[in-house]
Amino acid sequence: MLTYSFSDTGSDSLYQHLYKCIKNDILARNLRAGEKLPSKRTFAKNLGISVITVENAYAQLISEGYLYSVPKKGFFVSDISMLPSGTAFGQNSTARSLSKAAFSQNGTVRSLSGAAFGQNSTARPLSGAEKQAGTANLPSPPIDLTSNQTDIRNFPFSIWAKLVREVLNENQQELVTNPPCGGVWELRSAIARHLKDFRGINVAPEQIIMGAGTEYLYSLLIQLLGFDKTYAVEDPGYRKIARIYEKHKVACRHIPLDESGVCVSALEKSGADVLHLSPSHHFPTGLVTPISRRYELLGWAARAEGRCLIEDDYDSEFRMTGNPIPAMQSIDLSEKVVYINTFTKTLASTVRISYMILPRHLADRFYRELSFYSCTVSNFEQYTLAHFIENGSFEKHINRMRSYYHKKRDLLIQKIRQSELAPHAIIREEDAGLHFILELRTGLSDTEICRRALQKGLRIAALSSFYAQMASGIEHRFIVNYSALPEEQIDEAIRILCEIIT
Amino acid sequence: MLTYSFSDTGSDSLYQHLYKCIKNDILARNLRAGEKLPSKRTFAKNLGISVITVENAYAQLISEGYLYSVPKKGFFVSDISMLPSGTAFGQNSTARSLSKAAFSQNGTVRSLSGAAFGQNSTARPLSGAEKQAGTANLPSPPIDLTSNQTDIRNFPFSIWAKLVREVLNENQQELVTNPPCGGVWELRSAIARHLKDFRGINVAPEQIIMGAGTEYLYSLLIQLLGFDKTYAVEDPGYRKIARIYEKHKVACRHIPLDESGVCVSALEKSGADVLHLSPSHHFPTGLVTPISRRYELLGWAARAEGRCLIEDDYDSEFRMTGNPIPAMQSIDLSEKVVYINTFTKTLASTVRISYMILPRHLADRFYRELSFYSCTVSNFEQYTLAHFIENGSFEKHINRMRSYYHKKRDLLIQKIRQSELAPHAIIREEDAGLHFILELRTGLSDTEICRRALQKGLRIAALSSFYAQMASGIEHRFIVNYSALPEEQIDEAIRILCEIIT
Repeated sequence: MLTYSFSDTGSDSLYQHLYKCIKNDILARNLRAGEKLPSKRTFAKNLGISVITVENAYAQLISEGYLYSVPKKGFFVSDISMLPSGTAFGQNSTARSLSKAAFSQNGTVRSLSGAAFGQNSTARPLSGAEKQAGTANLPSPPIDLTSNQTDIRNFPFSIWAKLVREVLNENQQELVTNPPCGGVWELRSAIARHLKDFRGINVAPEQIIMGAGTEYLYSLLIQLLGFDKTYAVEDPGYRKIARIYEKHKVACRHIPLDESGVCVSALEKSGADVLHLSPSHHFPTGLVTPISRRYELLGWAARAEGRCLIEDDYDSEFRMTGNPIPAMQSIDLSEKVVYINTFTKTLASTVRISYMILPRHLADRFYRELSFYSCTVSNFEQYTLAHFIENGSFEKHINRMRSYYHKKRDLLIQKIRQSELAPHAIIREEDAGLHFILELRTGLSDTEICRRALQKGLRIAALSSFYAQMASGIEHRFIVNYSALPEEQIDEAIRILCEIIT
Repeated sequence: MLTYSFSDTGSDSLYQHLYKCIKNDILARNLRAGEKLPSKRTFAKNLGISVITVENAYAQLISEGYLYSVPKKGFFVSDISMLPSGTAFGQNSTARSLSKAAFSQNGTVRSLSGAAFGQNSTARPLSGAEKQAGTANLPSPPIDLTSNQTDIRNFPFSIWAKLVREVLNENQQELVTNPPCGGVWELRSAIARHLKDFRGINVAPEQIIMGAGTEYLYSLLIQLLGFDKTYAVEDPGYRKIARIYEKHKVACRHIPLDESGVCVSALEKSGADVLHLSPSHHFPTGLVTPISRRYELLGWAARAEGRCLIEDDYDSEFRMTGNPIPAMQSIDLSEKVVYINTFTKTLASTVRISYMILPRHLADRFYRELSFYSCTVSNFEQYTLAHFIENGSFEKHINRMRSYYHKKRDLLIQKIRQSELAPHAIIREEDAGLHFILELRTGLSDTEICRRALQKGLRIAALSSFYAQMASGIEHRFIVNYSALPEEQIDEAIRILCEIIT
């Protein structure tokens, strides 16, 4: 009769040990397909262990397919001839034995992650595999004019913590109740009210669809509008958009801008159905599309069935002078505009909450065709944000941030104007959003300037790098993304630029 | 004043009758948008019913979006011009008028959601627009055997709240620092260690990619593996998967199962490149794919370049007897398996955190091609969950849940066996996961049984409804999803089934 020693079971329980012994014998072909195993009772008696132990081992082997049972006959070895030939049958090559080895090194993971988070100032801790992708051959520079990160001092931690506490205490049932596919009703209502009060946008909450970041929403929109459509993006523009279309294998055209925004004749010629644009504050040029061009674009959309505008309003909250620019959504009478906005700019880039507003007919289609998707934003954050908006904290926060950014921008511009850089620099489009354009008089190429800056510890991007098709007169313009720039780094950033230019 | 007859309420309760009367009047435009309804007290007195009855009817109508309440003012008819054409409407269809009505009342939102969440047992509160999708013509039934919701008593609120507080105090810099595209390193390390300790899976944290729900990860995987690939799903299977492929316009084949799982010859014939499967606990049959079939499937994947298996391990943590079934990922020597798991089953369906494990060559490709995507899970929840796993709470929680579900399953099965249903019922596949199959001896069709059950207040799904291609011998089998079933509803659920069958 089959027998195994229980003298050295290591850290295994008796049942685990028996399970492994039998499995190894099956893998090693010491037990052959169809072979009958001892009855539980006999086997237990023979091995000096309890029947339960044998029972558990058999049950596990049955559930994994190594054994099968025949009622009133007993337990038999399964046919495992399909197992890959060439693998080391018999010598413990299975997952289970592997994991045994792994159990000895317990502290590894923690120390790894500890190390990764020691480096406070880097944009993102990089894993080994990501480094392979070639994104981080240099140590991250200490000064970053390309980052959209939130300064830790700006996130409203204390009020947020208070609201999280309240939600966890008072909304427990809501927190574990699946929300509608479009998101938590309370949040969508709060957003609708906020939009009405502060952006003059009138929408019903059911037109608002929440998503974990705008990138996710673009993907949903492709599914909603169609993979067969041709999408158009602004050139220059926010590069990620075109990459998302490319990764979804949909046709994508790059439409040049003129001084008023997207060029309508080029758009018409492109054969595009859907135009993605940021009319209130174009990235990276900072351009605001004037009302006449907005109507021209709406006219383009209205001229054919299936045309659509995706209005990306990503940082309209931070317009520095005057009122916010009215959204195209609010002057759209033909239901052609999908409006997208995000809380990653106003709260923190690491809070993944965005939303889109669908015109009625698209909202209908969304509920008909895509409502099987679960909302991608966790309830916990949706309720916290809803309360944050409802109790007025969001508006207060935006005002505080606006004035903080205003002050920082003024300081930065003032310091540039007082520096040795001044005679070589022009500042453009500084009235809206969280970046402006710095034009430098220099003979150096854009690539060369960015390279030298990085060498000296300053990361800056050239406007020209945001063009898909090169245009003339766009060289020597650099994007100054100041939202994440600590004030104490301003002087050093200017000094580095001076050193390169002069 | 509005009045209704209660002389013929059929099988409806008073509250259901009243609810239907008012709803019909709203749909028929006998009650107009903005019209005020009688106060609960007056209405109750007038109709000769209790205030509670009116209250319940109003609450149901509010939660479905037919009414809204204004604190200290009363109850008003919502603008329902969004409802589908063809059903009695045509006026007021613009966004502006709708939202105007919606914004006059300040308290709406809160009371709306409050009402919606009073109903513990419903799967999801539906907005008006979602109703258009045809998902909720009846009031949600009180007993739901199709829900995957977390019972509020099971979410570890106190430890979660404590960890959130700690993270908000101690990890502020990390919270606002953009994580790598794959997710927060600390969380991925914690998951890697957990998988090693409890699932015998050996992976490096950089192979783990976090995402806001598995649905999002499927979409990422299509981008990673290719829109030109042919995807295969299990038939029967979890219907959402096929819908996601369909919505992405990629070729999708339904592969029949035999008694060991996915049928390899059919798979071979289908021309598929990628197979999506749940080998450890198939939904809905409960089947565990035995080891020999697992190797056959791995063999299939290894036979051609570009083939791949997506192993969905969605509720392996809740295997009731024996150890968890080893993952296919852990016996995959050819780097052909993508492993997917989620915390929506183990924590709460409203916590949107899932992850996938990519084999090295796919992880490399992911970082090369898709690392421009931001991680869709908010840092706040990633850090909280990381601490939850690291300090052992997750393992404790799973054990507690497992024993809770075990107990509930045993009670449910015991009660079925002791009931009048027993002679008509066979229970299958009750050893794993959070559902089992109830086979009923009946002459009624599956559709008829589900319809009658719903009428009596019980939502249950037939196994046959999960088949893309009808197969023989699958009728009269019903899926009992007991995770969200309150114990106090067990008797009533059995009673309803008895009533239908006997």
